[in-house]
Amino acid sequence: MSLSRAEAYGYNIENFVGTVKVPVGVIGPLRVNGINAHGDFFIPLATTEAALVASYGRGADIASMAGGISAGMIGEGVLRTPAFVFSGLLESGLFIDWVARHAETLKTVAESTTRYGKLQSIEPFMDSDTVFLICRYSTGDAAGQNMVTVATEAICAHIAEHAPVKPRYAFIEGNFSGDKKASYLGMHMGRGRKVTASVELPYPLIERVLHVAPDALAAYGRVAALGAVLSGQLGSQAHYANGLAAFYIATGQDAACVSESSVGFTRMEARTNGVFFSVTMPNILVGSVGGGTGLPSQAAALRLMGLAGPGNAAALAEVTAALCLCGEISIIAAIAAGHFTRAHAKLARHR
Amino acid sequence: MSLSRAEAYGYNIENFVGTVKVPVGVIGPLRVNGINAHGDFFIPLATTEAALVASYGRGADIASMAGGISAGMIGEGVLRTPAFVFSGLLESGLFIDWVARHAETLKTVAESTTRYGKLQSIEPFMDSDTVFLICRYSTGDAAGQNMVTVATEAICAHIAEHAPVKPRYAFIEGNFSGDKKASYLGMHMGRGRKVTASVELPYPLIERVLHVAPDALAAYGRVAALGAVLSGQLGSQAHYANGLAAFYIATGQDAACVSESSVGFTRMEARTNGVFFSVTMPNILVGSVGGGTGLPSQAAALRLMGLAGPGNAAALAEVTAALCLCGEISIIAAIAAGHFTRAHAKLARHR
Amino acid sequence: MSLSRAEAYGYNIENFVGTVKVPVGVIGPLRVNGINAHGDFFIPLATTEAALVASYGRGADIASMAGGISAGMIGEGVLRTPAFVFSGLLESGLFIDWVARHAETLKTVAESTTRYGKLQSIEPFMDSDTVFLICRYSTGDAAGQNMVTVATEAICAHIAEHAPVKPRYAFIEGNFSGDKKASYLGMHMGRGRKVTASVELPYPLIERVLHVAPDALAAYGRVAALGAVLSGQLGSQAHYANGLAAFYIATGQDAACVSESSVGFTRMEARTNGVFFSVTMPNILVGSVGGGTGLPSQAAALRLMGLAGPGNAAALAEVTAALCLCGEISIIAAIAAGHFTRAHAKLARHR
Amino acid sequence: MSLSRAEAYGYNIENFVGTVKVPVGVIGPLRVNGINAHGDFFIPLATTEAALVASYGRGADIASMAGGISAGMIGEGVLRTPAFVFSGLLESGLFIDWVARHAETLKTVAESTTRYGKLQSIEPFMDSDTVFLICRYSTGDAAGQNMVTVATEAICAHIAEHAPVKPRYAFIEGNFSGDKKASYLGMHMGRGRKVTASVELPYPLIERVLHVAPDALAAYGRVAALGAVLSGQLGSQAHYANGLAAFYIATGQDAACVSESSVGFTRMEARTNGVFFSVTMPNILVGSVGGGTGLPSQAAALRLMGLAGPGNAAALAEVTAALCLCGEISIIAAIAAGHFTRAHAKLARHR
Repeated sequence: MSLSRAEAYGYNIENFVGTVKVPVGVIGPLRVNGINAHGDFFIPLATTEAALVASYGRGADIASMAGGISAGMIGEGVLRTPAFVFSGLLESGLFIDWVARHAETLKTVAESTTRYGKLQSIEPFMDSDTVFLICRYSTGDAAGQNMVTVATEAICAHIAEHAPVKPRYAFIEGNFSGDKKASYLGMHMGRGRKVTASVELPYPLIERVLHVAPDALAAYGRVAALGAVLSGQLGSQAHYANGLAAFYIATGQDAACVSESSVGFTRMEARTNGVFFSVTMPNILVGSVGGGTGLPSQAAALRLMGLAGPGNAAALAEVTAALCLCGEISIIAAIAAGHFTRAHAKLARHR
Repeated sequence: MSLSRAEAYGYNIENFVGTVKVPVGVIGPLRVNGINAHGDFFIPLATTEAALVASYGRGADIASMAGGISAGMIGEGVLRTPAFVFSGLLESGLFIDWVARHAETLKTVAESTTRYGKLQSIEPFMDSDTVFLICRYSTGDAAGQNMVTVATEAICAHIAEHAPVKPRYAFIEGNFSGDKKASYLGMHMGRGRKVTASVELPYPLIERVLHVAPDALAAYGRVAALGAVLSGQLGSQAHYANGLAAFYIATGQDAACVSESSVGFTRMEARTNGVFFSVTMPNILVGSVGGGTGLPSQAAALRLMGLAGPGNAAALAEVTAALCLCGEISIIAAIAAGHFTRAHAKLARHR
Repeated sequence: MSLSRAEAYGYNIENFVGTVKVPVGVIGPLRVNGINAHGDFFIPLATTEAALVASYGRGADIASMAGGISAGMIGEGVLRTPAFVFSGLLESGLFIDWVARHAETLKTVAESTTRYGKLQSIEPFMDSDTVFLICRYSTGDAAGQNMVTVATEAICAHIAEHAPVKPRYAFIEGNFSGDKKASYLGMHMGRGRKVTASVELPYPLIERVLHVAPDALAAYGRVAALGAVLSGQLGSQAHYANGLAAFYIATGQDAACVSESSVGFTRMEARTNGVFFSVTMPNILVGSVGGGTGLPSQAAALRLMGLAGPGNAAALAEVTAALCLCGEISIIAAIAAGHFTRAHAKLARHR
Repeated sequence: MSLSRAEAYGYNIENFVGTVKVPVGVIGPLRVNGINAHGDFFIPLATTEAALVASYGRGADIASMAGGISAGMIGEGVLRTPAFVFSGLLESGLFIDWVARHAETLKTVAESTTRYGKLQSIEPFMDSDTVFLICRYSTGDAAGQNMVTVATEAICAHIAEHAPVKPRYAFIEGNFSGDKKASYLGMHMGRGRKVTASVELPYPLIERVLHVAPDALAAYGRVAALGAVLSGQLGSQAHYANGLAAFYIATGQDAACVSESSVGFTRMEARTNGVFFSVTMPNILVGSVGGGTGLPSQAAALRLMGLAGPGNAAALAEVTAALCLCGEISIIAAIAAGHFTRAHAKLARHR
């Protein structure tokens, strides 16, 4: 490649001084039977935490032995929520009326700024003198955070010029959208791509591969659900963040979005022939284009999965959720069986 | 260096196939007047998101012009919360009694597994037939997640052998500690190092450097606080996750901990001579030893700040919070002034 | 009245043994300038807690002196959320498709059971094998909790008979609607009637009537907002529950709904001529008909306000929010001025 | 009785105009095998909502047939959390040091104001320039909300006079204690009395009395837990608020505390011979003395249970939790069996 390093990285960072090298391990092949992702995937994970790759790999192995993971992207939409401050509730109400009557115009205005982004909906949320507009966009194959910001700025500019009731203040983001933070709003509305993934593991496989008794597994399921609520988590899961951070770093996604993506619900149900596991993750923020996906090693990681470039974001989201499901299965089984510490002690030398 | 790459990275990952290169930018010098961190720090940030380094750098510049950021680590303690399931509340109560009477022994048992970890407290939390033990450790200069797991396993083993009332099930972690997820428990008790950092920015500096009117700044402060609560965040802040992810990756910390570290409270108060800004972050999980801190480029990043190796974890935590404060100042000012989108549009080409 | 007591109360309770007498105090007149409620209201409050009536009365007095409280009902809709369990995500998806295509039929079915209830929307929420249907109804002048249950049962029966994909289990309520509990969903979507109410109190009035310095008031506003978030409240307010419980009991509303109604956001902003106070309460569950509104003393309480019987529910909701605003003003000022304890100590003798 | 009505009620209310009569139904006898409450209790419930008494009564019947409800008060402590605002974090730290060194004095000061209240602990919580002191009191047989306020005012007065570092502002309550609102802090620390109660219902009894199949019961347990988390509840339960409001009104407790008391965790586990049900309620605010417990009809309600007057608060708290467990069993079974609506439709005429 003839680009200098500064040229290669210059669009992605300022004050560039070099690179940090994060070691990458690969798990798989993981079979995913998704609506968008089909096949056996080798999945790259970048981490400095011992035992992580081994643990996710174990989950991937048993899930594949069981026939693979079913996955479906069931929603998408990146939120941006500008805020408008008026003198009181009357003006807030008039403004909401005007927005409702001009929704089509605002859609046109927003979409004029982007080839791929589409404004799906614009929903007002009022608190006295302040109105938030929940703008929800589809973003094509990009994660889309910049795209929705630019489009929303066009909305704000149009409002500033045309709305008959002038806000005292207008802000492009009212700290309401859940950008870069866990929030209940994200859990409820979804921010990014919402994916559900599941697999039923037959009892014999559970005992042979995971070495855990079904009753201990069920007991831990109850305890983990209790712990999640009593400790005030948003959702209920074990460690999505581990898989997400490693996968986001490896594939050039925005690692800061781990904060919002690591919200969701892991479930476990003892059925007749095996245990049903599922994850539902409402805030997966991945793209197969844009952000860091075009950098050299990151692009290579996406190509390893066959998911680089346009047309692959939905599949990428399904693989992300399938990956997290593998991690949940593995850690739940390890803790239920009493193996959790041993794996860590063996693989990580530092105490 | 004569180590092969596999030898260099082998303790940190399994199924090693290579490294991913994440571009690093540097901001600063940022003056930090901490209890543990003193001086002017150049801070490395690894990210693929355009505008991030520039934005944090702007915050660092104005904070330093104002005399620097005051910071103090006001608590530390990594939680691990094993769970014990009994037949009913009577046995739960008997078990709690036994634990209370043997707290010193459990402390000895836990600390026998580690040179650096100290069991600060062990607090029972009971829900009917289930008892969680909130084990809180100081972890020296390591982030300490493995250390507390090993120590807690020793506690569990001791309980299994000696407790007069036998649990039906015992689990090393009851999904209660907030490990790798935002939780209210972490916000309340702290998990990792709790740091508060603040700076008062004089009004002339705000107008000259941040180009924002004080009334707009105050108005946005109100809106952002409102948005945080209405969207159901844990805490109230703008984008800690951006700075945390970039700093954790650059310095070999566990990037998955962004999920829990990115909880806290940002405040803003118009005072006589300027605007007081502060952040309080209860869950900073950083170490100056252990984890990925010894890898080649990560160690170099720590040395750039003079914070590599033993004796530096508390200072590292204070720098982390100071960094996040810079990011909060910059984004709040940018949104309040209407500059937010322009910075992003100029620095990030992809839409 | 010729009805026996058992006849009078028989529709409202089982195993009737008598009545409990709760003392009632009256505050006001409170001027409300609402979209639906206009005029000066004497408001009955049933409580056994000393100082409560005096405190709310003080807030009502100063609000009226300032010209009265602006109030607007900005949304209504009682939620009922049946849940349907399938074998996996594929069937969940098929079911959601079917529901979307039969929304009009389901609306007809639901509305056939009630004269007043209207199905506003039916929104699916999917988690793997489980689908919740968020059914949102307007309920006329009733609080409407029974009405929406009966209507939703008709929906469930229709689904059981006609949906091409049969659920393994169907439940009339998936514990998702926020019925009888504080929930973020209720804060976001609203459950019952959502009302915002505000008033600007001129500085001279604040000092003369509330005896509090503006800077102390502002400082307490900051502290109270901080405390709300750090303690993990849903919303941010001081004591809506006091006014709500007293008003709900006095007027025959469902006192258990205090749990969900006492969620919302109280704000305070120092403006040029005075301090702007507002409350926004998304979950007010009141009716001017139905429930306990027809019982002898409860109906008398509604008549005292001129809000008994059909046509008055929206006004009643606005008065409810205005009342809570009075309580917020009074307690905030009392705590800010250091008078809080004195009032309690003087009025409540028992320690 | 020779007291005039104004004399009877004058200590409990201001602007007294009369009483509102709330109908009371009785359920039971409910067998409670508590640490403090032993025996068969007839429990009075004041409500205007049809079907409530019948539903709770059904739960009480089956629980008693199964041998009664085990219950234990496992914690007590009413919180009051004054806040102190300083110039910055350094002074906050100095203040916290001083408090720690004078904890015994502050205890003496607090307890000098009350015969029954004991200061159990005083824990600082710091956010930059602001320090909350979490003061936790036992309150004897009173609910104790006024008692802790008066005692905490004495602490604040002592601090104002003696602390070497003077706060810019001091407030008796920093809106942090969870008083009159659901909060995660209350769930974690407990506010009031924390009680856990449980019963195992044999399968034959479940089928014969509740007419529900065990698999449907288990399926609904899973759905209800899922719904609780996805809707963003604090804790996970069905309708504690119904029983609490009715019981608090009947027995002269503070009905506004339903907001905070209705937080907790209901569990269900299929065991070998039956289904284990439990509730854990951390925030039960009841007293057998004080508040409205001395009013004529309220005192009669307490006497009906044999729990009027000194020495009975712990037993009263256990009965409260046992009552809520009855309500949970009944509603869970009704929804699981598809009977929920029928009961309501039959008993409540109004639609």
